[in-house]
Amino acid sequence: MKIKQTLYNLLDEDQNNSKGDAFVHYFISGLIIINVIALFLESYQNINKDYQTLFWYIEIISIIVFSIEYLIRIWTADLEYPEVKPYRARLKYIGSFMGIIDLVSVLPFYLPYFIKIDLRVVRVLRLFRLLRLLKLNRHSNSLKLITQVFKRTKADILITVFIVSLLLILSATLMYNIENEAQPEAFSNIGEALWWAVATLTTVGYGDIYPVTGIGKVLSGVIALLGIGIVALPTGIISSAYIEEIQHNRKKAQDNSCEHCPHCGKELKK
Amino acid sequence: MKIKQTLYNLLDEDQNNSKGDAFVHYFISGLIIINVIALFLESYQNINKDYQTLFWYIEIISIIVFSIEYLIRIWTADLEYPEVKPYRARLKYIGSFMGIIDLVSVLPFYLPYFIKIDLRVVRVLRLFRLLRLLKLNRHSNSLKLITQVFKRTKADILITVFIVSLLLILSATLMYNIENEAQPEAFSNIGEALWWAVATLTTVGYGDIYPVTGIGKVLSGVIALLGIGIVALPTGIISSAYIEEIQHNRKKAQDNSCEHCPHCGKELKK
Amino acid sequence: MKIKQTLYNLLDEDQNNSKGDAFVHYFISGLIIINVIALFLESYQNINKDYQTLFWYIEIISIIVFSIEYLIRIWTADLEYPEVKPYRARLKYIGSFMGIIDLVSVLPFYLPYFIKIDLRVVRVLRLFRLLRLLKLNRHSNSLKLITQVFKRTKADILITVFIVSLLLILSATLMYNIENEAQPEAFSNIGEALWWAVATLTTVGYGDIYPVTGIGKVLSGVIALLGIGIVALPTGIISSAYIEEIQHNRKKAQDNSCEHCPHCGKELKK
Amino acid sequence: MKIKQTLYNLLDEDQNNSKGDAFVHYFISGLIIINVIALFLESYQNINKDYQTLFWYIEIISIIVFSIEYLIRIWTADLEYPEVKPYRARLKYIGSFMGIIDLVSVLPFYLPYFIKIDLRVVRVLRLFRLLRLLKLNRHSNSLKLITQVFKRTKADILITVFIVSLLLILSATLMYNIENEAQPEAFSNIGEALWWAVATLTTVGYGDIYPVTGIGKVLSGVIALLGIGIVALPTGIISSAYIEEIQHNRKKAQDNSCEHCPHCGKELKK
Repeated sequence: MKIKQTLYNLLDEDQNNSKGDAFVHYFISGLIIINVIALFLESYQNINKDYQTLFWYIEIISIIVFSIEYLIRIWTADLEYPEVKPYRARLKYIGSFMGIIDLVSVLPFYLPYFIKIDLRVVRVLRLFRLLRLLKLNRHSNSLKLITQVFKRTKADILITVFIVSLLLILSATLMYNIENEAQPEAFSNIGEALWWAVATLTTVGYGDIYPVTGIGKVLSGVIALLGIGIVALPTGIISSAYIEEIQHNRKKAQDNSCEHCPHCGKELKK
Repeated sequence: MKIKQTLYNLLDEDQNNSKGDAFVHYFISGLIIINVIALFLESYQNINKDYQTLFWYIEIISIIVFSIEYLIRIWTADLEYPEVKPYRARLKYIGSFMGIIDLVSVLPFYLPYFIKIDLRVVRVLRLFRLLRLLKLNRHSNSLKLITQVFKRTKADILITVFIVSLLLILSATLMYNIENEAQPEAFSNIGEALWWAVATLTTVGYGDIYPVTGIGKVLSGVIALLGIGIVALPTGIISSAYIEEIQHNRKKAQDNSCEHCPHCGKELKK
Repeated sequence: MKIKQTLYNLLDEDQNNSKGDAFVHYFISGLIIINVIALFLESYQNINKDYQTLFWYIEIISIIVFSIEYLIRIWTADLEYPEVKPYRARLKYIGSFMGIIDLVSVLPFYLPYFIKIDLRVVRVLRLFRLLRLLKLNRHSNSLKLITQVFKRTKADILITVFIVSLLLILSATLMYNIENEAQPEAFSNIGEALWWAVATLTTVGYGDIYPVTGIGKVLSGVIALLGIGIVALPTGIISSAYIEEIQHNRKKAQDNSCEHCPHCGKELKK
Repeated sequence: MKIKQTLYNLLDEDQNNSKGDAFVHYFISGLIIINVIALFLESYQNINKDYQTLFWYIEIISIIVFSIEYLIRIWTADLEYPEVKPYRARLKYIGSFMGIIDLVSVLPFYLPYFIKIDLRVVRVLRLFRLLRLLKLNRHSNSLKLITQVFKRTKADILITVFIVSLLLILSATLMYNIENEAQPEAFSNIGEALWWAVATLTTVGYGDIYPVTGIGKVLSGVIALLGIGIVALPTGIISSAYIEEIQHNRKKAQDNSCEHCPHCGKELKK
């Protein structure tokens, strides 16, 4: 039982007291970053050819470490969730967001032994190891603040997404009907027009597709100008939520029992 | 009379109590989305050829449903606006924003039987069905908030539009006179220069038209940098309006239960 | 003397009481807009050829009206500035921003009779008539608010412009030295590199000039990401100034003598 | 000792009382700007050829002035930092940010006499003279405010950078696997895909690299739309920090003269 507790403490990100904790913490983080760099370099054909063995060793070591870590986390899940029965705690971990990421991190290695799978899917799945880095920051105040801001503005942002979607579909359909005759290849269907609409509204403007007719240019200009409003809307929402959240946190800190004036610092009469 | 009330309740978006209400609600929403998807897929020539019959059935069913809905809404308009006489209530609905959208949704089907009309206009008109989705969200707090923010900032945004327009015309005319000699085809008239000005100020920058002379590039750089300010202005306006609106709503919620003036600290009379 | 007062009142934008005021107001505004549209259409060669006579009449009428207006404004300047001596009042008007715009509006017509001048300069000068439209809005609350916001943030925006300039020069010089060897034509001098830097930092990205070397792309990516911060900075400045200004105006409106709690509306003890 | 004090006062940017101070101040600023202009013009081959002697004299004079200034600053460092021992004060100046910039400003001239060095590195190092202009503004309130805002938001901005990095790597790897088959040259490795990801997320969109497959376009659209949020996040952070900082400064200014707690309304002890 004592080993179990020790292992749990070593892997637990919430408490980094001992040197052992910090070592495990940095070792896993380092391994994730090495994995991402390897994935990155493997995509260069000449590097891939020359260092194939190195990449193979990195993969093997990573799989062993992450697999062991995953098994320990399943084993010690009853310490993570002491409020439920052990077997339920294990299922809870396996089904949690972080549990799934931990599984997806090792899965691409074992999968080809069981089923026939596209190599590219394997590579993409391996990338999910990167998301494990989020764990390290999970307890940072800034990430908490950003998370709270997004939770607070969820409904407003969804409505913005809804309005943007309406605008995209409307402008794409209009543009398809305007430009299709002049550029039957570029604006061959509404899908292509939608690609144009996104590139214009977000002001990316690759330049692979743009209107050539007079009416098309007028519509495009209007959409691009509306794009400014579309940037302004979520910015306004997030700004105000940030201010709200910060003021809310400060008020909670100041607390009810105000014994001193927050302005001048003088003591208050009782 | 009872049937009329039942029909009215079924179509009314404000109250979704019974299972029937929810069914009608989701059925119409689903039909709108199917229509938009059909419109989208029809623009792909090969899909259009293969599934012509399917698209025809979707259109027929939609027309029947939306036409019946439109007629019921006219019939039950006196329940929607009980404060005016029945025939006035009907005219009020027909002339309302949603009434016009409802009519425009079915019109493209009937129009070709009466007048000769461009097929593209019909297609675009059918798209207006999408706006009916706004009804579903009409009562969401987020949409209300956004609407209130835009109402509050209307005058400020109009002035911003006015300033942007001045800036666009000024820079387009200047650029036309600067670049016309070097690129007589690209900057052939102020209309084309205006197209450049919009693409630059909104930072879309397709790359189909840009200055090549030294002075032209300097002017273009200045316009692009001013474009940042042009984004900052409406963002600032909307941010502040959002904060205002949220604080205003909270203050109304707080209300009554304070015994001292928060500004001067004087005790309040009971 | 009475005619002088009447003429002054007719032209004065601050007071639009009588019907005559409104007529003069709209007549001049209309003439300005017609002038801008004419300038716009003249740039289309075929339109210019066909309607040359019409454009000539518009120009002649505009010149007569604006010249008379300018002379009346000089004559009635002592009513506009009653605090100084008449001849000083006239000089004050002639030297004022609006006085110069009024002169520049008619000057391009008379100039070619005195000195040899490029036709393009004449055309651009005529465009300044557009700025007279600003007069019409001079008294709108929104324009006042925007003006106040820019005055309040002047120093902060100047520092932002200074930082942006430093960043542009630094990145342009760096990029010139990085890319010059690989693309001696595109990055032929720091001037061209500056053109790239502006297009990247403002996220316009026409696509006529971009790095091709590895280091160049890394630097370009960093500049583009910094561009986000460069947008965020003035937006933050203007947002906060807007909120400040609105709260400041409201506080002034609420006034000192708060007899009622601004939250609950209860009367305050004296 | 008196000469030392005089020299120190002349170079010290904090106090510009005498005419001599102002002269030295403007002379050095002017020399820096002339240097940057020279560096700029030297990059134009024809200008460089014609005015080579002029550029040589500018360089020689600058080196003499900046070298003398650097030596004086080392000598008078004990007046700048009177709290530490003289030799420590000198080391402190040499190791400070401004001390390093001052050294880097003259180094490129002396370096080639000692080691073999690339001419381009020399040119880039000379550019650092520009950063000396920051000294002039070091004491402006606006720059202080911006510095405080960035200090306050440091943690939040770092997290934003972390999230943006994750997003860039994830989307680049995904896009590489999606587009590599269709465009093996454009998306030849994840490095190129990262270049695309930055250009899209920052909405620069040069147009040298973009997806052509259907899935690639969908992913690109999602990334571009997320780009809006990525702009909104730091803007919101900086806006709120600005408002916080301004309110904080004003509260400090208000201070003492309140007799009641503005929060709870209780009377304050004197």
